[in-house]
Amino acid sequence: MTAETDSKKLIVNCIPVDETDRQRFIEAAGDVRIEFCGDPEHYGDMKVKAQIPEDLRGKATAVLGNFDPAIADQFTNLEWLQTWSAGVDAYIKPGVLPEDVTVTSATGAYGQSVSEHMIAMMWALMKNFTLYVRDQEAHEWKDEGMVLSPKGATALVIGTGDIGSHFARLAKGAGMRTVGVRRSADKPVDGIDEMHGFEELDELLPEADVVALSLPRAADTHHLIDARRLALLKKDAIVINGGRGDAVDDDALAEALSCKAIRGAGLDVFETEPLPPSHPLWDEPRCLVTPHVAGGSHLASNDAHILDIAVANVRRYAHGEALQDNAHR
Amino acid sequence: MTAETDSKKLIVNCIPVDETDRQRFIEAAGDVRIEFCGDPEHYGDMKVKAQIPEDLRGKATAVLGNFDPAIADQFTNLEWLQTWSAGVDAYIKPGVLPEDVTVTSATGAYGQSVSEHMIAMMWALMKNFTLYVRDQEAHEWKDEGMVLSPKGATALVIGTGDIGSHFARLAKGAGMRTVGVRRSADKPVDGIDEMHGFEELDELLPEADVVALSLPRAADTHHLIDARRLALLKKDAIVINGGRGDAVDDDALAEALSCKAIRGAGLDVFETEPLPPSHPLWDEPRCLVTPHVAGGSHLASNDAHILDIAVANVRRYAHGEALQDNAHR
Repeated sequence: MTAETDSKKLIVNCIPVDETDRQRFIEAAGDVRIEFCGDPEHYGDMKVKAQIPEDLRGKATAVLGNFDPAIADQFTNLEWLQTWSAGVDAYIKPGVLPEDVTVTSATGAYGQSVSEHMIAMMWALMKNFTLYVRDQEAHEWKDEGMVLSPKGATALVIGTGDIGSHFARLAKGAGMRTVGVRRSADKPVDGIDEMHGFEELDELLPEADVVALSLPRAADTHHLIDARRLALLKKDAIVINGGRGDAVDDDALAEALSCKAIRGAGLDVFETEPLPPSHPLWDEPRCLVTPHVAGGSHLASNDAHILDIAVANVRRYAHGEALQDNAHR
Repeated sequence: MTAETDSKKLIVNCIPVDETDRQRFIEAAGDVRIEFCGDPEHYGDMKVKAQIPEDLRGKATAVLGNFDPAIADQFTNLEWLQTWSAGVDAYIKPGVLPEDVTVTSATGAYGQSVSEHMIAMMWALMKNFTLYVRDQEAHEWKDEGMVLSPKGATALVIGTGDIGSHFARLAKGAGMRTVGVRRSADKPVDGIDEMHGFEELDELLPEADVVALSLPRAADTHHLIDARRLALLKKDAIVINGGRGDAVDDDALAEALSCKAIRGAGLDVFETEPLPPSHPLWDEPRCLVTPHVAGGSHLASNDAHILDIAVANVRRYAHGEALQDNAHR
């Protein structure tokens, strides 16, 4: 490889595009060369691994898409990786990519779909639907008793990034009061009525009707909701986790549900995924388990959001501007 | 019974009350005698039949509460019956009460709880929860595919009374556009963006992402949603019925679900209740069946609404004013 080639930027775009999107990328890339190798058959399916021809791997200075981390060492000229996933753990862990490669995620693309999944879980648990589906399977016409309402209830939104803010706005649309918890309590967030720092969490939990977690993975949020904090909740409280699985101690949560210390839980993420077949959460009738599907490409509009994020960063890259980097290496 | 007794008003209140509510009724009744015979043990449970001492039955000119229609002929002096139910069918059908007895229902008490149940059904069906609960029972970690979003979607709200208006406001809070269908299309309703008459229904159905029915029972709404109209819907449409069961042809709906002509259905009411054990709707995985529980006393705040309605009508009765009569005999 000559010095001349090294100095040249080459964007390899693995995001499946139609002709309109293709033109958007070309326009954004300006003078920078851009190669498309997304398979249009996979349009709308961001779960597949990006396939990049071998001869492009060493030349690519930028890649848009999630290639197999096992072949990361073949990308010897890489400056920038834009994933189509919200998570970038597979790429930023030591030994995968050199330290100086910028990794940007598609975090912002999933706020709508994850928050909608979370609010849907809240509604389902408030109205006993997890019980009614079971009764329905048995063709049983059975009254499952009192329900809850979001009207006037308090949602404690832990983690107020894109997902948390979206969730808070939906919660307000359902008549709730929203209390946020974040590191910088002085920054207002759209949809949050009242913001607090993490140090106030123990005082806030007893007031919460719904605890909605959408935290990124971080060492200090591991088991943030543990047995002690679950014990601070109301008997009618509902816990929803759409962020990182390890923010909740799943064993302690199963125990709290089993002894009816709380009303219910809606979980799309778990400490161990897939949730082990023997885990007691599977059998809790007031726990709604979904298999990490709140984000991904399950909502058609997510793909549009991912394209928007990628196009905007391609434009920045082509102009030598700072990339929008939600992953914060 | 003397003429003197006949001319005297006597309100028999069977609604279980606490001391505060008792005082509200006494104040509202003014000079009119009011007897309380609700069982405080049943506070919050409006499902039980009102128990009225035999000696009060012939004297009562007004009853608050649902007594057994089989003993209606014992209420020889009745002028007014205020039910704690939304439905009054059992009392207004021929041969139960004399024609000149005014029957007022607690219709307005259930708008919040029924509409919440309906919007929760919509969310659950959009996010595939009826499938995920089944997978959970099998301890199966399985992706059930694409989901839907209410954002920017159109809710066709058929019947825009108290429930429909509440539903429309919740739908807007979830990001939807709301189109209403009612008899008098010129009357605006809170939460409805655009109102139409029933004669336009066939043109509106193909545009609907969600069809939300909350109609009172009426001869001309029987099977309003039949096989022909189901065939006008989008393949991804969701039908929700929280009003009267016979507005939907349940057999045609089961057929539409079975051949995937529509996405899903959420039903709390049915043509025949309880839904017969052999009905195919029980086994449709994208149909959510609940046993007529959206209203009733399943939400604590319903009872407060019923009390408000009853107190207001007691005040009107005592002052000789027209009773607020949602049942329209």
